[in-house]
Amino acid sequence: MAVQKPSIPKGTRDFTPVETARRDYIFSTLKEVFRSFGFAAIETPAMENLSTLLGKYGEEGDKLLFKILNSGDFMKGVRPFGDKVVYAHPAEKEECVDIELAINNFNNKPENYSQKITHFISEKGLRYDLTVPFARFVVQHQNEIVFPFKRYQIQPVWRADRPQKGRYREFCQCDVDIIGSRSLVNETELIRIVESLFSKLGVEVVLKLNNRKILAGIAETIGYADRIVDITVAIDKLEKIGLDAVCMELASKGISTAAIELLKPMLRLEGDNIQKLNRLEAIISSTESGVAGIDEMRRIFAYTEALDIKLDIELDLALARGLNYYTGTIFEVKAKDYAIGSICGGGRYDDLTGIFGMPDTSGVGMSFGAERIYDVMLALNLFPDDIEQTTRVLFANFGGDEEIAAMKLLPLLRAKGISCEIYPEAAKIKKQFDYANKRDIPYVIVIGSQELESGCATVKNMLDGTHSPTPFDKLDTLFL
Amino acid sequence: MAVQKPSIPKGTRDFTPVETARRDYIFSTLKEVFRSFGFAAIETPAMENLSTLLGKYGEEGDKLLFKILNSGDFMKGVRPFGDKVVYAHPAEKEECVDIELAINNFNNKPENYSQKITHFISEKGLRYDLTVPFARFVVQHQNEIVFPFKRYQIQPVWRADRPQKGRYREFCQCDVDIIGSRSLVNETELIRIVESLFSKLGVEVVLKLNNRKILAGIAETIGYADRIVDITVAIDKLEKIGLDAVCMELASKGISTAAIELLKPMLRLEGDNIQKLNRLEAIISSTESGVAGIDEMRRIFAYTEALDIKLDIELDLALARGLNYYTGTIFEVKAKDYAIGSICGGGRYDDLTGIFGMPDTSGVGMSFGAERIYDVMLALNLFPDDIEQTTRVLFANFGGDEEIAAMKLLPLLRAKGISCEIYPEAAKIKKQFDYANKRDIPYVIVIGSQELESGCATVKNMLDGTHSPTPFDKLDTLFL
Repeated sequence: MAVQKPSIPKGTRDFTPVETARRDYIFSTLKEVFRSFGFAAIETPAMENLSTLLGKYGEEGDKLLFKILNSGDFMKGVRPFGDKVVYAHPAEKEECVDIELAINNFNNKPENYSQKITHFISEKGLRYDLTVPFARFVVQHQNEIVFPFKRYQIQPVWRADRPQKGRYREFCQCDVDIIGSRSLVNETELIRIVESLFSKLGVEVVLKLNNRKILAGIAETIGYADRIVDITVAIDKLEKIGLDAVCMELASKGISTAAIELLKPMLRLEGDNIQKLNRLEAIISSTESGVAGIDEMRRIFAYTEALDIKLDIELDLALARGLNYYTGTIFEVKAKDYAIGSICGGGRYDDLTGIFGMPDTSGVGMSFGAERIYDVMLALNLFPDDIEQTTRVLFANFGGDEEIAAMKLLPLLRAKGISCEIYPEAAKIKKQFDYANKRDIPYVIVIGSQELESGCATVKNMLDGTHSPTPFDKLDTLFL
Repeated sequence: MAVQKPSIPKGTRDFTPVETARRDYIFSTLKEVFRSFGFAAIETPAMENLSTLLGKYGEEGDKLLFKILNSGDFMKGVRPFGDKVVYAHPAEKEECVDIELAINNFNNKPENYSQKITHFISEKGLRYDLTVPFARFVVQHQNEIVFPFKRYQIQPVWRADRPQKGRYREFCQCDVDIIGSRSLVNETELIRIVESLFSKLGVEVVLKLNNRKILAGIAETIGYADRIVDITVAIDKLEKIGLDAVCMELASKGISTAAIELLKPMLRLEGDNIQKLNRLEAIISSTESGVAGIDEMRRIFAYTEALDIKLDIELDLALARGLNYYTGTIFEVKAKDYAIGSICGGGRYDDLTGIFGMPDTSGVGMSFGAERIYDVMLALNLFPDDIEQTTRVLFANFGGDEEIAAMKLLPLLRAKGISCEIYPEAAKIKKQFDYANKRDIPYVIVIGSQELESGCATVKNMLDGTHSPTPFDKLDTLFL
């Protein structure tokens, strides 16, 4: 067989030991926090039926799904036929027509052909996010699940996006949700998770809060209740493009000048969160949603106040993420000291599981962007120094009885949780020390003939170059 | 949108909180052991280029690869054309011919059409195992890697196998390898990993050992050096079908009666490992490979003896797994108390990376079958009892100031690593206790109006039904 120059698909990544150790540090911290809050892990398959995935992420999302070719003779039933080229399995008459129509239009709309044939040759797709599989899981296992159901899920997802800096075709999502309870205690616990997690990771963050009902109240107040999406899409850009540009965009979308003038003061609210809420309430209190949204927000602030939550929390009316399915609270977390967009987001949804036949099940959740958190921590040098030390102690290898003596001592250290190894060959000592240096191993234990005779090893500290003699049976205490 | 009854692709699985907790227990133990031996984790993408995967697993393996449909207009260049039906992109002349030939043969060999078209519409496949991606990784990153390279990798793999009991289309592999060293110290360390891992998991195992060179020596000794594969495939069945049937199979493959008579005593060796080796040596010592294999085996036994390894180790000449690429030691681990086939296997390979352009790099590794280890542990009831307790303490919720008091105490317990939560709503107390029972939460803390006044919570042990009053500020000490 010819020798191949190896490579991986664009947009995917290999993770080296150091990168994997850093990523594991983030995942472990997330898991530790989620678990301490009583969340349990679930896992779902990488592949879902396309019927589960299609139509859930918009037309653009459907195109970004990685589709898996059916196994075996996938073209069976999709055959060349006279000059018509392709027809479906005779049993599927209706499909037949579809396909033939597509073929007739083929020269004008070549994409149609790919689209039409996909349906016949692919039934499964790779997970695009963890939200839809979670909704599917909840409905499918509703009789085994204890509600309120508190789950976390840390798994890769795949998107056929155009790869670019910081955007990958395979990346990890870390989701945490409580489903089956409308209580704002849940929002409060999620806020505490943010506080606890980023404090453990050493990342300074600000949590931005908004509420879909407040946005609805604003849209209604200015007379455009039905234009909430256009309005929020525009004001979502406030930070980026400024108030004037937002107003121009609104005008270009047909929002009247009078309405824009009504909106302006709401986008310029000043003061602390409570002051902002008070001012906003004065404006939108004639709308039912507005009042409900303000009330929810006040109760959340009452919790964070009473519980002395130290996190920096900001009411931000321009926050309008995930408006398709969020129905109440909307969250977003940003790093204070590194500009990279949001590193965590989420909100409350009242009907995630409806599409799979289980209506009226309210939940609230957050998704932590591990890839971005990684970038922030790397840029700010927040990973622990010893994360690259996958091995703490190397025993040098001199062969013979010395080798056996060293190998006998390995379990002593391992039993204390100290990762250690012996250089597998009695190579030149320089080569062995080089290996320790390249692998960032901080200690090398030397047991040569003298050490073997005295029962006292020489421990070399690779960081400062010092040596210390240590009796064999005390070696395990040296690195604790 | 119509309501869908949710389901997942056949051969795939959802993992519930309890299942995920049990699986995590196995994975965490594996990682802990691998790390303590100085192995570092890497990760590779779920998708590999098909050029990396195809031809590495035999013809059957190629068929079992899950292939990913190219994104976008994947049929571009694969078009209907007159009555020829399909032709490739004009630039790829040679391919054109191929495809047309396939189409001409279409009615006779319909599978050909699927096979031929795959090449045009799919460039990526899902990882089939961790070995080929590891070889690809080593070659691709050879300039960043420190050799000997000790890596572990725990990731799912996908195979389009026919699903059946215990065989899934998505399952997890757990591989550990040392590459870039021929020393038998590596084999010895892997044996110690087996000892350490299964002792931690509480699974009694036997490790079977063989050596490809011994098998080659045997084949050469009976005069059929070139028939080593046929011979070992037959004797691999010894345990299952017995000596007579093995001999019949060998005869049916054209091995002479004289050769079979020479072979028989080697398959009936008795005594301990050293006695078996001595007897075998007397028979195969005229062959170079035989001598080399016996020598390697003796040295491994010398290590396990000197290091007082307690593991049950058995020389087993019928062990012939992975003969395609193993070149020295061959390992297999079986559970003693549960018949499920091998739960771990591995061996030494001298040219894993050759196909990707990096020859003469010897390595040795093992793959742990987490799915089977799970089945063994479940059957033998070896999972820790508290694994289902994802939450240890539930605070009952009475609303108002009582709720705030309970919420204030949560961080006290979490800081001590005690997972806890508050029931999110002030529901009827029976409902809250039911929730605790269903989730296997062993303790419920009640803070009602009396408790709030006295500063002393009522802690209910859900297992024995007892209550105990505990001051708020001592709650964290109660569950340690």
